[in-house]
Amino acid sequence: MTAQTPQTYDDLKEIYQSFISRRDKDRHMNIFWETNPSKFNNGNQSLIELSGGMPNESFFPIESINLNILTEPVSNDTIPSIVTREKPEILSLSRTLQYALSEGFPPLIEFIEKFITKLNNIPLYDKNLWKIILAGGSCDSLFKIFETCTDENSTVMVEELTFVPVVSNIINTGAKIIPLKLNLNNKDEGIDLNYMESLLSNWETGPYKHLERPKFLYTIPTGQNPTGLTQSVEKRRKIYKLAQKFNFVILEDDPYGYLKFPKYNHENPLENPYKDGKSISSDEYIKNVLMKSYISMDTDGRVIRFETFSKIFAPGMRLSFVIMNNFFYDKFLKFQEISTRQPSGISQQIVYSTIHSMTSSKDDKDIIESWLQWIMKLACNYTERRNVMLQALYESESFKIDQFSIVEPSAGMFIIIKINFDESKGNIIEQMNKVFNLMDNNGVRAILGYKMAVDQEFSKDHLNFFRLTYSYADNNNQIKEAINRINKSLLEYFK
Amino acid sequence: MTAQTPQTYDDLKEIYQSFISRRDKDRHMNIFWETNPSKFNNGNQSLIELSGGMPNESFFPIESINLNILTEPVSNDTIPSIVTREKPEILSLSRTLQYALSEGFPPLIEFIEKFITKLNNIPLYDKNLWKIILAGGSCDSLFKIFETCTDENSTVMVEELTFVPVVSNIINTGAKIIPLKLNLNNKDEGIDLNYMESLLSNWETGPYKHLERPKFLYTIPTGQNPTGLTQSVEKRRKIYKLAQKFNFVILEDDPYGYLKFPKYNHENPLENPYKDGKSISSDEYIKNVLMKSYISMDTDGRVIRFETFSKIFAPGMRLSFVIMNNFFYDKFLKFQEISTRQPSGISQQIVYSTIHSMTSSKDDKDIIESWLQWIMKLACNYTERRNVMLQALYESESFKIDQFSIVEPSAGMFIIIKINFDESKGNIIEQMNKVFNLMDNNGVRAILGYKMAVDQEFSKDHLNFFRLTYSYADNNNQIKEAINRINKSLLEYFK
Ligand SMILES: Cc1ncc(COP(=O)(O)O)c(C=O)c1O
Ligand SMILES: Cc1ncc(COP(=O)(O)O)c(C=O)c1O
Repeated sequence: MTAQTPQTYDDLKEIYQSFISRRDKDRHMNIFWETNPSKFNNGNQSLIELSGGMPNESFFPIESINLNILTEPVSNDTIPSIVTREKPEILSLSRTLQYALSEGFPPLIEFIEKFITKLNNIPLYDKNLWKIILAGGSCDSLFKIFETCTDENSTVMVEELTFVPVVSNIINTGAKIIPLKLNLNNKDEGIDLNYMESLLSNWETGPYKHLERPKFLYTIPTGQNPTGLTQSVEKRRKIYKLAQKFNFVILEDDPYGYLKFPKYNHENPLENPYKDGKSISSDEYIKNVLMKSYISMDTDGRVIRFETFSKIFAPGMRLSFVIMNNFFYDKFLKFQEISTRQPSGISQQIVYSTIHSMTSSKDDKDIIESWLQWIMKLACNYTERRNVMLQALYESESFKIDQFSIVEPSAGMFIIIKINFDESKGNIIEQMNKVFNLMDNNGVRAILGYKMAVDQEFSKDHLNFFRLTYSYADNNNQIKEAINRINKSLLEYFK
Repeated sequence: MTAQTPQTYDDLKEIYQSFISRRDKDRHMNIFWETNPSKFNNGNQSLIELSGGMPNESFFPIESINLNILTEPVSNDTIPSIVTREKPEILSLSRTLQYALSEGFPPLIEFIEKFITKLNNIPLYDKNLWKIILAGGSCDSLFKIFETCTDENSTVMVEELTFVPVVSNIINTGAKIIPLKLNLNNKDEGIDLNYMESLLSNWETGPYKHLERPKFLYTIPTGQNPTGLTQSVEKRRKIYKLAQKFNFVILEDDPYGYLKFPKYNHENPLENPYKDGKSISSDEYIKNVLMKSYISMDTDGRVIRFETFSKIFAPGMRLSFVIMNNFFYDKFLKFQEISTRQPSGISQQIVYSTIHSMTSSKDDKDIIESWLQWIMKLACNYTERRNVMLQALYESESFKIDQFSIVEPSAGMFIIIKINFDESKGNIIEQMNKVFNLMDNNGVRAILGYKMAVDQEFSKDHLNFFRLTYSYADNNNQIKEAINRINKSLLEYFK
C-alpha cells in the first residue's frame, strides 16, 4: 500500500471499502417519501405537501425563546438572544422544532466549516471529498463509527490507558483491542513510538500475530484522558507516516484540543499568559497555542476527526461533529438515518443562536472571532485552575518527600500523580485501593488510574496513578483543599 | 408456555431471557468511576470530587432561558417560563446542561409516570417490576429495542403496511420480517385476526415453516401509519391472548394515541365534540375517547410501549420514552449507556419546564390536568382538519363517480384513499405512478401507498392507495385546495 491522494469518490471507495464493517454491508434504508423536486411550477401557486408525516408548526407549544448568554465564563453579564419562529432568519424555531435532516442543520454545519477552516483543522485533499456531520455527543459519534467500521475481523489500536467507554464500543462490535504503550512523562508524551513501530513492523512474529493487522488507531492526541498528555507535532507526523505505511485509519478524538495551556512556569506558578500583560491574540492562539491536528496533515482521507460541544459549550446539549472523507461520511449518515435520526433540533438551535449572538455583527469573521474569544477565555480559566492545582501539588509535603511524582498537562482537564509505592509492600492495586479509601475518609475523590487501563497485565507498570480533575471544583480554594486532603492521605499511608 | 404473572426480577429473567439478542450477550460496559456513596462525613465539610470528567457549570455560556409558551395551539397568547441555573429547583439548568444519567432526569420520569398512571397506560403486574426510560425519539427507542432483542435467529411480525424505517431497523439486526394481513376498511380495522391466528396455529406447515416462530409483534395500534386505522379493544384483547398462547412480545408503537377523534358525522361533517356544546372533559377523554392500550392489559410483562413527544410537543426535541419490564429495561439501559448515552439535557429541560409552566399551580394534579388540556386541544385541531379533508374528499366529483374509496381515520394524521383502478389497464404500480405524476403536475403531493408495503407481492391487493396527511397544511383552505387538485388529477387520469 503506497499512500495516495484521492481525486474522486471512486478513489475513496476503492481505498476505504475494506475499512467498512460486515454489518454495514447489510444495512439499508427504505425511503418511502419522494426526494425529487416537484415539477410543479404554476405561477405563484405552490405545491401542497400531503406527504410528509410532519405536525404543523403552529401546534408546537413554544412561541419563542430568550436566551441569556454570558459575555464571558464565570461572569454575570449577559447578552440576550431572541429566538422565534421566524428568527434568526437562517435557522428559526419553525425549522429546529420540526423533523429535519439527519446530518444536522446546514447553517450550523456551514458555521462549523468556516470555523475549522480558520483553525486549519481541515484535511489537505480536495475540499469536495470531505464533509462534516453532526451527532449527539462524541460518545454517540464514536459508537456510530465503530458500528460502521469494525467487526469480528477488525483490530483497533488504542492507548493503553484510555477513555473507557470507547473500549466497550469497540468490543461490542466484536473487534479486538490492541493496547499501545504510553510514555507517562513530560519528555516524550504519549504513545511510545518505538513500541508502536516495532509492533507493526514485526506483526507476523509479534504477540498479536493471530489477529488481523490493525485497521484503526483510536487516539486522544491532546490533553489525553486519563493521562492529560499531549502528543508533539513530530510524533503526530511520524504516526501519520506509519498510518500510510501500514494502511490504518486514525480516529482523532479531540474534545480537549481547545483547552490548551501555556507551559507551567515553576518560577511563577500562577503565570497565565492568557490574561497577563497583553493577552494572547486569536491569531497567536491559532498559530502558537493550539496543537496541529492529525486531520490537518491528512493527504489521503485516512483521518476521522471527532469534536464535541461538551467541553466548550455544555455536555447537556449532546452535540458533536465528525469530519471525514465522503465515503466514510455516507456510511455514517446511513447508519445515523436508521438509528437515532438527528441530534436534538433545539440543541442545534441553542448552540447556533448562542454563538451568533456573542457579537452584534453579522459578519462571519466577527462571529468566528467572538466564538474564539469565548473559547480562549475558557482556556484561560482552565489554565488558572491547572496552575493552582500544580502549585498545590508541588508545594505539598508528600511531594517534597518524594511520595509521588506529577505529570504536567498542557491541555484538558486532568493531572495525573504517580504514587511511589514500595512494591515489596504488596500488589499495586491493593495499595492504590488503600490510598483511595484514605482519601475517601479525608473527603476527596479521584479516579483510580488502573480502572482506565485496557489491560491491567499489559499496563502493570502504570497502575500506580490517580487522575485528578481540576475542572469541576467550585473554586481555587476548593482545589487547594482537595490537594491538602490528598497530601494528608498520602502522609498517613506512608507513615 | 402458559401465561404467568411475574413476581420477581428472576421471574422476568427466566421468562424473557430468550428474547434477548445474541449481540446483547457480548455487550458490556466498563465503569471506571466510583458509584458507591462516599463514607466521608465530616461535619459540614463536604467531599471534594476530583473524579468526574465534568466541566464546571460556570463555564457554560447560558445563564438563563425564558421560554414563551403558548396557552393553546395556534394561538398567540403566551405564558413565560423562566429557567435558570437554580430554577426550577427540582430540575435546573445547572443539571440539564451537565452530564447526566443515561435513563433521563428523574423529575421528568416521575412526571411521566404520574401522567401515564392517570391515563391507565401502565401494566397490571407489580409496579416494582417495570420502569420508564427516556430516549432520543421513538426512532431511537425502536432502533435500540431491536438492537437489544433481535438477531439472525429472530422473526418479527409487522403490519403489511407500516412505518418503513422500522423495517430497516429489524432487517439490519439480521432478523426476518413476517407481514401480517391488514383489513383496509372501517369494519374490522387493522390486523386480520383470522389470518394471524391461522398463521401461528399452523406454523409448521405454513409459508414460514423454515423460520423460527416469531418472538415479536411490532404494531402501531392507533392511527396506524400509513393506513390511519385503529384496532378495536376486542381485537387488542384477542391479540394479547395470542401473544400469551404463542409466547411473543408486543411492541406497541403509539405516537398517535393521544390524537384520537370522535367518529366522523356524515350528517354534520364539521361536528367537533372537542369544542361544540360543552367540550369533552379530561375524564371523558380518558374514559371514552382514548383507546385502551396493550400495556394496560399486560399481566405478563410482554408489552413494550413506545411513546414520543414528537406529535404532542415537537419533533425537534428528539425526546421519547419506553415503558417495559425491568429485565428489558436493564438491557436497554446498558445499550443506551454504551451508545448515545443520554437524550439532550436541554430538550428534557424544555419539555419539563413547558409542561410545568402551563399552570401556575405546583400541584401534580393540576399540572397533569393542564398538560391533558393542551393535548386535547391538539386533538381538537386535528379533528377539525380530519373533518375538513374528509368532507372535501366525500364532496369531490371523483369520489361521487366512484373513482376512489375512503378509509376514515379515528386517530392520527393520515387518511388513505384507495383508487379504483381497472386492472386490465395494466400494473397497479405503473398506474399509481401515473396518478402521482398528474398530481405532481397539479401541485399536490401524497405518499404512494405501495412504498410502505413490507413486501409488494404479499400486499398485491393493497398497492392502490395514497396516504394523505392533514397535519402539515397551513390551514383548512389549503386542505380543500389540495383535495381539489387530487380530484382534478383523478378526473384527468380516468378520462
Ligand atoms: C476522550 C473523550 N472522548 C469523548 C468524550 C465524550 O464526549 P461527549 O460529551 O461529546 O459525548 C469524553 C468525555 O468525557 C472524552 O474524555
Ligand atoms: C409509527 C411511527 N413510529 C415512530 C415515529 C417516529 O417518531 P419520533 O419522532 O419520536 O422518532 C413515527 C413518526 O413519523 C411514526 O409514524
